[in-house]
Amino acid sequence: MKRRDLFKGGVLAFLGSTLLSPLETLAAPVQKKGKLAKNIIFLVSDGMSTGTLNMANMLLHRKEGKMSNWLSLYEQNKVARALMDTASANSLVTDSAAASSSWGGGKRVQNGAINVNSDGTENTPIWQKFKKAGKSAGVVTTVMATHATPAGFCVTSNKRSDEPGIALKYLQHGIDVVMGGGLENFSSEIRKDKRNVFDEYTKKGYEVFRDRKSMNSYAGTNKPMLGVFYQDALPYSVDRSSDKELLEKIPTLAEMTQKAINTLKQNKKGFVLQVEGGKVDWAAHGNDVAALLYDQIAFDEAVGIAMDFAEKDGDTLVVITTDHGNSNPGLFYGSNADKNFDRIFNFKQSNNWILNGIDKNTSPNTLIEKIESAQGIAITNDDAKKILSHYDKLDEKGLYNPRKLPFKELAIIQERFTSVGWGAMDHSGDYVELAMYGPGSELLKPFVKNYELHNLMLIAAGVADLKTL
Amino acid sequence: MKRRDLFKGGVLAFLGSTLLSPLETLAAPVQKKGKLAKNIIFLVSDGMSTGTLNMANMLLHRKEGKMSNWLSLYEQNKVARALMDTASANSLVTDSAAASSSWGGGKRVQNGAINVNSDGTENTPIWQKFKKAGKSAGVVTTVMATHATPAGFCVTSNKRSDEPGIALKYLQHGIDVVMGGGLENFSSEIRKDKRNVFDEYTKKGYEVFRDRKSMNSYAGTNKPMLGVFYQDALPYSVDRSSDKELLEKIPTLAEMTQKAINTLKQNKKGFVLQVEGGKVDWAAHGNDVAALLYDQIAFDEAVGIAMDFAEKDGDTLVVITTDHGNSNPGLFYGSNADKNFDRIFNFKQSNNWILNGIDKNTSPNTLIEKIESAQGIAITNDDAKKILSHYDKLDEKGLYNPRKLPFKELAIIQERFTSVGWGAMDHSGDYVELAMYGPGSELLKPFVKNYELHNLMLIAAGVADLKTL
Repeated sequence: MKRRDLFKGGVLAFLGSTLLSPLETLAAPVQKKGKLAKNIIFLVSDGMSTGTLNMANMLLHRKEGKMSNWLSLYEQNKVARALMDTASANSLVTDSAAASSSWGGGKRVQNGAINVNSDGTENTPIWQKFKKAGKSAGVVTTVMATHATPAGFCVTSNKRSDEPGIALKYLQHGIDVVMGGGLENFSSEIRKDKRNVFDEYTKKGYEVFRDRKSMNSYAGTNKPMLGVFYQDALPYSVDRSSDKELLEKIPTLAEMTQKAINTLKQNKKGFVLQVEGGKVDWAAHGNDVAALLYDQIAFDEAVGIAMDFAEKDGDTLVVITTDHGNSNPGLFYGSNADKNFDRIFNFKQSNNWILNGIDKNTSPNTLIEKIESAQGIAITNDDAKKILSHYDKLDEKGLYNPRKLPFKELAIIQERFTSVGWGAMDHSGDYVELAMYGPGSELLKPFVKNYELHNLMLIAAGVADLKTL
Repeated sequence: MKRRDLFKGGVLAFLGSTLLSPLETLAAPVQKKGKLAKNIIFLVSDGMSTGTLNMANMLLHRKEGKMSNWLSLYEQNKVARALMDTASANSLVTDSAAASSSWGGGKRVQNGAINVNSDGTENTPIWQKFKKAGKSAGVVTTVMATHATPAGFCVTSNKRSDEPGIALKYLQHGIDVVMGGGLENFSSEIRKDKRNVFDEYTKKGYEVFRDRKSMNSYAGTNKPMLGVFYQDALPYSVDRSSDKELLEKIPTLAEMTQKAINTLKQNKKGFVLQVEGGKVDWAAHGNDVAALLYDQIAFDEAVGIAMDFAEKDGDTLVVITTDHGNSNPGLFYGSNADKNFDRIFNFKQSNNWILNGIDKNTSPNTLIEKIESAQGIAITNDDAKKILSHYDKLDEKGLYNPRKLPFKELAIIQERFTSVGWGAMDHSGDYVELAMYGPGSELLKPFVKNYELHNLMLIAAGVADLKTL
């Protein structure tokens, strides 16, 4: 494939051949007409089954009398919608690494890989392509900034678990905004190689933030920024809201999104930003209803921030979606279903907070009181004993449930009180909801495969078109 | 509200004031422009969670290399789509009676009621409105023809369970096509009142069919038709396909749909037809994976029949949706997820068939062999014992599981082989998928409440417009 200059609607992009990877399927059968997207904001509620989207909207509506920003966009007929097939190269049911890689690299890879094919070849991540086209690029998440979903847009890696390596790769590729949790991958005290990655970012001109206050007092310049606010993933929204210290230290996803936009928008050639509600997925893995719904609502606030910017700006494509379903929760039929669901209004803590706050010496009564005070529900003595019986056999394995805490058992007990049930504790192969707003959204077909979004974004922004693909 | 004549696009409709019930919300904020719908075909896959739609498509794609008709419409960008809020008057989680009534009567009613409000007043069912406007009207289903979903478009009833009464009401209102199961509500031998309802239909000029062969040999005239093909609900598609006698006796939903269209289209003023895949809901209640997916595929074939007609006709609005989620099934993550899912290719019988085909005298070995031969999976001796242990305590209660058979236990065992899991055995409050094709589909907003479809259909057909509502 030859190099060529692309003049598209005023956006000049010079694309090298390494940039233009072979493409299996084109996102749109026609060359893009009309306005180009100067900016792209891509929002991912990780592991969001349709019930998660729906119940978060129901909760907001019943508790606060308003719809979610996401579904308001539907009611106001502002967006294009699609169902998205989320499969990976080796399974109908993807993991987050393969899912983000499909968008990020334009090709499906095997579960666990980040833009690396099974033959060892690599796919150029889309934020690198946009960087070469002169735009600024960022990632913001509530899990580790080096986690699979942000990584899939920025870097290549054989193993999603190489997060210390990914922290260095972001710097190498000059990703302009990196925010989330994951101190463990940046701090010399915790990294195995003892490198002080914070220092390395600072030396390359990054503004570095480690707490909410300093981030919020920063007005934003054109300097790149790194924000790392917690040891691993950020706490669940419902737990943060109930803890004064966390409230002060940890920014919300919406706040990080706003700061990222403030910084990135200073590039006159435009920007691209991925925003991930990463702990929606973790809460689904834990069948942790309040963690799930309040983190989905926190994600939705970030949707609001992105849309406020995009509606004023007029040149921004906003993509709102998830990478796969998880656990397929639902509010299920019963004479008390509504009343039970409304109990979640008063949940002040996640199940994760409860189960990490007890040990094998906790008495049934103490657990009963703890749950009543944290969630307003009164479990029985037998329930408490059942939960506590798991605390003798804990070890440290498992990605999302490192101490093998009895999340499932608590969720089953809790279902009696909330009427919310779960189909599993893992990802599902469901097709998922996707919405687009702004220039480029007209390219969206109502049924898409995840990897087709790669080209769609390139075409939408005029960074590639059919002649070059 | 005054009577008035409505001349809309050549369709004359004279609407009485009783017809024009007070309306809470208008389906569309503008008077309809453009073409009117002469005909409406409203297809309901009852109790279809998003995973049901998605897994049926995956199964078809992997087994037969083709997409479902429903999702092909998305891929070809032929339809308008919405998410639909399915709540009833008294719950976030509806039953089928309240759900059909919301479409049928334009108002939400309490679960269990058919177009009857909590104060005892009644809402005129939409098929009666279209009858008054000169159109023909029909209902076709795989459950009893008198079941909640077809009834909600045709009649009013305090109790959905009064199916013998509903059989008479259809006749009273001259519903032109009535097809499905439910001999028990038509036959003098089984009805408590001993009325021979078949005779009453015949005397009023209906062609009456009791088996597939006679129905299929009928070319279709402008006479109304009644088809009742089984004692209660029709057998599951997967069981019908494996039974020569059932294959001969019972028509598919697609065949019934084709016959209904052939008859109804002879009315020059147009027709309205509801088509229900009713046993998708029953299969979800039973966590019965092959019953669910093959009945969803049978529903999808009826979608194909409706679309073939509508695409040639050009004057037909097609609505494709469900009334509520049920059990939120999903294909869940695991290294063997794809291989496990593909096992469903070879399922020849439903769990319902298996569990009704054994009794307390069945030996574990016999059960193991029965399941292996019916579904190609080898359960263990302990699994078999667990299932059989339920056969000592059976009684005759419960709507969808009258003998309290161990559906849940079998589904849990089966999940090891199929990777398909279930969140419950009942309806969910999820927002659901809705698609529209043809004139009137431009009125659809991307987020709708179930009852808003009532006015949308009236406006789409020019049988009412904003001036009269």
